[in-house]
Formats: sequence, structure tokens, C-alpha cells
Amino acid sequence: MIDYSFDQAIELAYTESPDVFIADLPTSWRVHRGPINGGLTVSVALKGLFERLEKQFGHPDPLVVSAFYLAAADPGPTEVRTEVIRSGRSMSTGQASVWQIGRDGAPTERLRTIATFADLGSTPPTVHTVARPPYLPPPEKCIHIDDLPGYPRDEVEVIQHYDMLIDPDTAGGPDGRPSGLGQLRAWFRMRDLREPSALLLPLVVDAFPPIAWDLGVSGWVPTLELTVHVRARPAPGWLKVEITSANLAGGFLEEDAEVWDSSDRLVAQARQLAKVITAPNALPVGHGWVV
Amino acid sequence: MIDYSFDQAIELAYTESPDVFIADLPTSWRVHRGPINGGLTVSVALKGLFERLEKQFGHPDPLVVSAFYLAAADPGPTEVRTEVIRSGRSMSTGQASVWQIGRDGAPTERLRTIATFADLGSTPPTVHTVARPPYLPPPEKCIHIDDLPGYPRDEVEVIQHYDMLIDPDTAGGPDGRPSGLGQLRAWFRMRDLREPSALLLPLVVDAFPPIAWDLGVSGWVPTLELTVHVRARPAPGWLKVEITSANLAGGFLEEDAEVWDSSDRLVAQARQLAKVITAPNALPVGHGWVV
Repeated sequence: MIDYSFDQAIELAYTESPDVFIADLPTSWRVHRGPINGGLTVSVALKGLFERLEKQFGHPDPLVVSAFYLAAADPGPTEVRTEVIRSGRSMSTGQASVWQIGRDGAPTERLRTIATFADLGSTPPTVHTVARPPYLPPPEKCIHIDDLPGYPRDEVEVIQHYDMLIDPDTAGGPDGRPSGLGQLRAWFRMRDLREPSALLLPLVVDAFPPIAWDLGVSGWVPTLELTVHVRARPAPGWLKVEITSANLAGGFLEEDAEVWDSSDRLVAQARQLAKVITAPNALPVGHGWVV
Repeated sequence: MIDYSFDQAIELAYTESPDVFIADLPTSWRVHRGPINGGLTVSVALKGLFERLEKQFGHPDPLVVSAFYLAAADPGPTEVRTEVIRSGRSMSTGQASVWQIGRDGAPTERLRTIATFADLGSTPPTVHTVARPPYLPPPEKCIHIDDLPGYPRDEVEVIQHYDMLIDPDTAGGPDGRPSGLGQLRAWFRMRDLREPSALLLPLVVDAFPPIAWDLGVSGWVPTLELTVHVRARPAPGWLKVEITSANLAGGFLEEDAEVWDSSDRLVAQARQLAKVITAPNALPVGHGWVV
């Protein structure tokens, strides 16, 4: 399993303290030539909680995760500090923080997450749902993100880890032609064919180009907070992902993500609040948005 | 302001430590003859963060909140322990925990929240939105929750603090006649006419009967985690609230809430993950759900 890029990136070394782990975040997971992707940053924190909650309580799967992004994480040495908050028979809850040495030489907390873990292999199989998987054209009718001429590939190193086949109708945001609709639908898998798992889903929900790009906002759109509900362990194969945003207001926007597995089961729901740094450009006429 | 029931319930006394506050949660905020309502429990924690982040940094408004419910809170003496995690010019982030003495005499953590505060009076006025307020009949065509014959009013003391005028088309859940659709739309205000504010909105999003009731689930549906985005300070007057759920699976369901103010602005988006304790009853035929 350690042959896969994701598992390598979040590999932890033990320390003398059972609460503290050491990671080394690779430069290949950077965005915008600088910070480490937010999905990977929360994933290394969750790996620390996995080490605690799976081993002590038999709860290997993140069920609900909330992460606050305090400062951009850099590549390199990283400390993951964990705390078990509560343990029960079917669920346990912990907190993990990502610490790095800041430019001033002092340890700086980059991310703090609280998460409840469970064993999603033992939950009841019953599903009552009105949710429907997003409509996606078949993969051969979608566009690989590598083939979008307007996508700033050189600035987003992390994209090398993903295969994303984007519905052409929603490719405007990543391609520099914002539609104003705030929609992105795509097939997703890890480029090295690592199969999806509950622990991979927080990475997946934050893997896509910012939905704000489809609203005429450019550049980096930093996440303040990310919540992920993992609703089931995903089946192997391609995932279907839908990203939407409805409300850009007061300098913030929400970004909602749904992830569906190859058996058409809803496996993750996520929402983040992000800050708009550059004001949106004028949107095309008739885009349906109230400005 | 302290004449209002909400502000009285979350009133804090200072201690020798600037990080620690004391509250006394009133019995009138209980649900199901036992625990304190989850919205009030997070509100008292946020009041502790307000004391820190407003006074030190001029950030009075919760902007994004995530709360993990670790154990049911009881009426009575309560300690709110706070920590400032990060402060910046426009936002600051803190953590607050609600502690009470457990049945075994030992202090027990009941809730832990992380929240980022800002000054929502100083954010840019620009709004780009495709979100639309929920359709609600005028108040006189809606049903006050007190007048729903099937609502278990005697078991839910907290309801005395609220005026809820429910769209008759979505009254089945609270009235013991589940539709299976997972929808609830209502007008909302505090019964003592306290006007809404950013600090009130986390209470509002958790004030309504569990949406799971509309899916045939009965009784208490404990929240594991609640995320709230406060998108603007609400205008005075009635709020419009829409609660929905799409996916009840593996013994959990999500509950989404949107709150709109009297100027038809989206002021809060919330999502919680809740645990289903009793299995759902059979749903009416033709309810649209895949079972």
C-alpha cells in the first residue's frame, strides 16, 4: 500500500510520545507553487487519528471530520499531535493538529481537526435516499484535466496525482472560461490506481480546482474550514464527483462536494467555507446569478 | 438584552482564569425530558468564545462553527473552557469546551467546538447568488407548532422559547405523519421577540424537530457534529428556515438547514450528521425514497 503516492505522502513515523507523529510532506502535493494542498494536510492529521483510534478502539474510518485551516502548510517536516477526546463502543472522537516550524523558527499550528471515527464495515446496510448521482457523460466523452488548454497545470503540482475526467459542460472554471453557474462534475481516480477508501475521501473532496473559478474569481481561494461526512466505504473503481456553490457573499463562498462510488452509492458529502481574495471578474450575461 | 430567554440561558460568569467561564443551563431548554438542546449547548460555548474574541480582537460574529457532541448536556452548572488558537486582522479562531460534572462525580466534556469569528458588519456588501429563499405560504396560512395535534410538546420543553409557523405541506414530520420526503419549511422567531443576530443563528439551525421524523424515525436523533456558516448578520424580523435531508444510510443521516432573513438574504447554512437510534418505520407508498 505504501507504493501509492497518497499513502507515501501521509506516512507517519512514531516518536517517544504515543500522541505525536512525524510526517514529511512532499513538494509534489503543492498548489500555486507554494502551500500543500488542503486535502492532503487534513489527510495527514487524520492518519494520526487513525493510528490512535483504529489501534486502540477498532475504529478505522473517519465518519465526520471538521478541519480549520489556520495557516498554509509547507512541504517538509511536520508534526501531527493527537488527542483522544472520547471513546465509545461504536465510535471514538479525537483531535489532531498539524505543526511545522514557521519562517520565524517557532513551531506554528497550521491545521486543527476534530474527527469521529467508526467501523463503516459494520454499519447497517439500509439506505433510504432521495439523493441521485450526478449526470456525467461516459468517461470517453469527458475531458482529462491535462487536456484543458486554460488549466494552469504548471502552478498546481498536486494535479499530477489525479485522473480527472471533466464533464465538458462544466469545464469552464478549470479552463479559464467561467460560466457563472458554480458547477463542476467529473470522474475521479488516483493516477497510480490506488483504490478509494474512507481515508481517501477527505482528499477527494478538496482535490478539484476551486469552484470559485467558475464564478469569475481567479487565483488561490483559501479554505477556512472543511467538513466531510463519510457515508460509506467506497467500492473500487472510478468515483463521480459533483462540486457546487450557490452563494458568494461578503467575501466568502461555500463549496459543496458530493462523491459517489462505482456502485452509485453516495459515499461522501462535504462543505467548505472559502475566502475570496481577488474580487470576481464580470460574469457572462444571462448566467443566472444575482449580483 | 439580558431580559431575553436566550441571552439569560447563555449568560456567563467570570472566573479567576481568563480562559474559563461559568454558566447555569436552565431546565426550560431541555428536549425529551432530559438533555439540553444541542443548539443551546453550542451557543453557550460560542458565548465563551465571544468573550475572548470580541474583546481581544474586535471579532464579535461567529463566521464558521463546527461542534462535536460528545455526551448529552444536563441543566445546571456548566464550565466553558476556551482557547484562542489564532488571531488575525480580519478573523480569529478559538476552541471552546462545555464541561459538567458527570453522574460519577468526575468532570466530563460534553461538547467541543472550534469556531472562526469575524466582524460581519465590515464585510463587502457584494452578493452573487443562485440560492433562492424557500417558498413559504404567508404566516397566517402556516400552522403554529403549538397547534399541531401530533407534536409531543410536553416532551420538548425547549419549544416554549420559539414561535414556529410551519408550512402545512411540510408539517407531517413534527405532527407524527411522516411524508418520507425529508422536508420542513417554517417561519421562525424567538417567542420573546429577541431579534436575530449572528450569535443566535447556531441556535436557530438546531431548533426544529428532527428532520428524521419526516422519514419515519421517531424519538431522539442525537447529533454527532454540527457545522454552521453564518453568511451575514440577519435583519430584524421573522426568519425563513428550510430543513432537508437526502440520505439516511448506515444508521446516520445528514440534516441541512438554510436560514433566510426578512430581507430575503441567506444568513446561515448548516449541516449536521445525526445517528438514528430507532429504525425507521415503513414509509408511505410513493414517497420517492429508495429503500
